[in-house]
Amino acid sequence: MWPHAGPSAGPWPHGPFVGWARVPYHAPMSHFEHEIREQPDTLRRLLQAGRGPFQAVVEAMRRREVKFLQIAARGTSDNAARYAGYLFGVQNRLPVALAMPSMNTLYGTPPNVGSGLCIGISQAGESDDILAVINAARAQGALTLALTNRPGSPLAQAAELCLDLHAGEELAVAASKTYTAELMALALLSAELADDVARRQEVERVPDAVAATLELAEEIERKVERYRYITRCVVLGRGYNYATAFEVALKLKETSYVVAESYSSADFLHGPMALVDLGFPIVAIAPDGRAGQSMAEVMRAAELRGAELCVISDRDDLLSIGRTRIRLPVPLPEWLSPIVAVVPGQLFAFYLARARDVDPDRPRGLSKVTRTR
Amino acid sequence: MWPHAGPSAGPWPHGPFVGWARVPYHAPMSHFEHEIREQPDTLRRLLQAGRGPFQAVVEAMRRREVKFLQIAARGTSDNAARYAGYLFGVQNRLPVALAMPSMNTLYGTPPNVGSGLCIGISQAGESDDILAVINAARAQGALTLALTNRPGSPLAQAAELCLDLHAGEELAVAASKTYTAELMALALLSAELADDVARRQEVERVPDAVAATLELAEEIERKVERYRYITRCVVLGRGYNYATAFEVALKLKETSYVVAESYSSADFLHGPMALVDLGFPIVAIAPDGRAGQSMAEVMRAAELRGAELCVISDRDDLLSIGRTRIRLPVPLPEWLSPIVAVVPGQLFAFYLARARDVDPDRPRGLSKVTRTR
Repeated sequence: MWPHAGPSAGPWPHGPFVGWARVPYHAPMSHFEHEIREQPDTLRRLLQAGRGPFQAVVEAMRRREVKFLQIAARGTSDNAARYAGYLFGVQNRLPVALAMPSMNTLYGTPPNVGSGLCIGISQAGESDDILAVINAARAQGALTLALTNRPGSPLAQAAELCLDLHAGEELAVAASKTYTAELMALALLSAELADDVARRQEVERVPDAVAATLELAEEIERKVERYRYITRCVVLGRGYNYATAFEVALKLKETSYVVAESYSSADFLHGPMALVDLGFPIVAIAPDGRAGQSMAEVMRAAELRGAELCVISDRDDLLSIGRTRIRLPVPLPEWLSPIVAVVPGQLFAFYLARARDVDPDRPRGLSKVTRTR
Repeated sequence: MWPHAGPSAGPWPHGPFVGWARVPYHAPMSHFEHEIREQPDTLRRLLQAGRGPFQAVVEAMRRREVKFLQIAARGTSDNAARYAGYLFGVQNRLPVALAMPSMNTLYGTPPNVGSGLCIGISQAGESDDILAVINAARAQGALTLALTNRPGSPLAQAAELCLDLHAGEELAVAASKTYTAELMALALLSAELADDVARRQEVERVPDAVAATLELAEEIERKVERYRYITRCVVLGRGYNYATAFEVALKLKETSYVVAESYSSADFLHGPMALVDLGFPIVAIAPDGRAGQSMAEVMRAAELRGAELCVISDRDDLLSIGRTRIRLPVPLPEWLSPIVAVVPGQLFAFYLARARDVDPDRPRGLSKVTRTR
C-alpha cells in the first residue's frame, strides 16, 4: 500500500501515518508548472518596471556610505541570497554576510550592522524572523531594504526601502518565478550600483533566454524517467551557480522527496566525495564560465569513481561527462547564468514529481508561508 | 560481492570500480578513535598555552577598529566558521561574513574587506584558496589571522597574526580534535574580546565536560547497531549548534558513507520537511539553551509525520521524543555546548563505520590535505 496510499486525507491530522494524493498522469496543469512557464513574462514585467526603484536604492547606499551587506532570508530566498554573495562580492566588491535570524529571535543580541545595508528577501514578506532582522538593523541605524513580491507586506512596511518583484501571486508551495525574479532584481541592483550600462543591457537578454530554455520541457520529461526510483543524490555547482545547486536540490526535496544535497564542487572534495559509489547520482550545474571550467576536474574524478552524472551545461566537454545531458540553449554571461541554469532543474523536479505520480503542488507537510521563530 | 569487495586496491586507479578494505571488528585503535579520545588533553593544552596570543589579537583588533569579520575555511574548519558566526555575532555583536574563496581563485575580484578582520581557519594551513583569501585581504590593508594546527604552515606565514591550536599532529582524514580545538580557540578569542573573566572561566570547564562525554562510548557503540543499514538521514541543530549539525553530518558522510544532510531546524520547515516519511531517520542535536528549547516543536512535528529521532541532549523533554536517546552528561552554557555536543556525533560516526566493517581512517577517495583552486 504505502507510500501510494491516496487519496490523501489532507495534512494528516491523525498520528504518524503519511500518505499523499496520487495524481493522474494527464492532470490539469499544476500551479508549479504554470509558474515555471510564466517566468519569461514575470521577468519582462520586472524589466518594464524600470530603473527608478533601483536608482533610489543606489542613491541611499551612496548617501549612507554602505560598507557591507547583510542579507536575511529563508528557503528559496536564502538561495537568492547565496547568489547575492557572489554578485555583490565579485561585481561590486562588497562583502556580504548572511544574517542568522535566530540571533535576533532566540538570543536577542544581533550583530551591529549600523554601517551596512540590511536586505530582507521574502516572497510573501511575512516571516517573523526576517522581519525581526530588519527591525533590529533599522533600530541600529542601518539602511534597510525589502525584496518581496508583496509591497504591502509587513516586511515591506518595516524596511526603509522596497523593491517589488512584480512576479504576480505565487500559488505553488515550491517557489519558481519568485526565485528568478529575486535573482534578476539583485542583478539589476548590482548593475545600477556599478553604474554599468553594458551590464544592464545584458540583463535585458535574460527573459528570452529563459523562454528558450523552457523549450527543453519535453526532452526533460523524457529523460527524467530514468530517475523514477532515485532516493538520494548530490547537486554540484560553483561560483555564481553555487546558489543554483542549492535551489535545484531544494526543488527536488520539496516536490519529489529525493534526499538531494548541494555542494560547491570544491567543498565536495573535502569529505562528501567519500559517498560516491557505483551509480551514485550527481547532478552537475555547469554553465560556461570560470566556475564551469573549474568543475571539470571534480566531475571527471566523481565519474571515475563510479558516479553517474546528469550534466546541465552549454559546454561540450562538460556535457560529454554526463550519462544524461541537458544542453542550455542560450549562453549568457556567467554572472547571469543562474537565472537560466535553474530552469532545467525546476522542470526536472516538476517532471520527476509527475513521473512518481505525486502532486507537486501539495508537498507533504509544507505550507506556502512558513512561520519560524 | 559488492560493496564489500576488499581488500581495497588503494585509491582505485583503474576505472569506475570502487571497493574498500574490510576491517576486522577487533582492529587496533584507529587514528580517528585515538584522536577523538585525545580531545580532553588537546583542549587542556590549548588552555595552558595561556591568554597571551588571544590578547595580542584583541589588541590589534582594537587598534585597527575592526568592524566585521570575514572567515575563510573549508570542510570541518568551515563548520568552526559557522560556530564563529553565532559566537561573535551574539557575544561580541560583530557581523561575520563567510568568505567564498572562489571569488579570489576563479574571479580574481574579491570583496573589499579593508575595515575587517579576515580569519583563515585550516588545520594543516595548506589550502591554496584559503591562502589566496588571506593574501588578498592583507593586500587590502585588512587585519589577518590564521587559526591553524601548524604555526609553520604557509597560511600561518601569510597572515599577520596566528593562533596555534596546540592539538598535535592529526592523522585521521576525518578531523576531530582540531575541530574542537578550533571551537575553543574561537571561544577564548570571543571571551577575550568581550573582556569577560566569567566567560573565560566557563571555557576552563570544557575539557572535563568533554572527558565525561567520552564515557558515552560504550553506550553509543551499542546503540549504533540499529543504524547499520541506513543510507540517508537528516541532522538538525540550531543557533550555536547549527555548526554541530553540519559537523556531525560531515563525519557520517566521511566515515560511513551515509547521505547525511544538516539543517537548522528553522530551515527544515521551509521545504525539507517534505522528505519525512515513515521511519525517516533524523539526528537532533539539542543541548539545553534557547536553541534547544526552540527545537522541540520541529522535532515533535517530524515525529508526528513518522520520522524516527535520535536525540542528543541533556533535556528530558527533548530526549523523550527520541527513539534513540543519548544524554549529554555535563550541561555547559549554551555558547560552549557545541564543543561537547559534537563528541557523541564523532563517536556515532566512528562506531557506525566499525559496525559496517569499513576503515574510518581510509575514507574512499579522500586525502588529508585537499587542494582546491
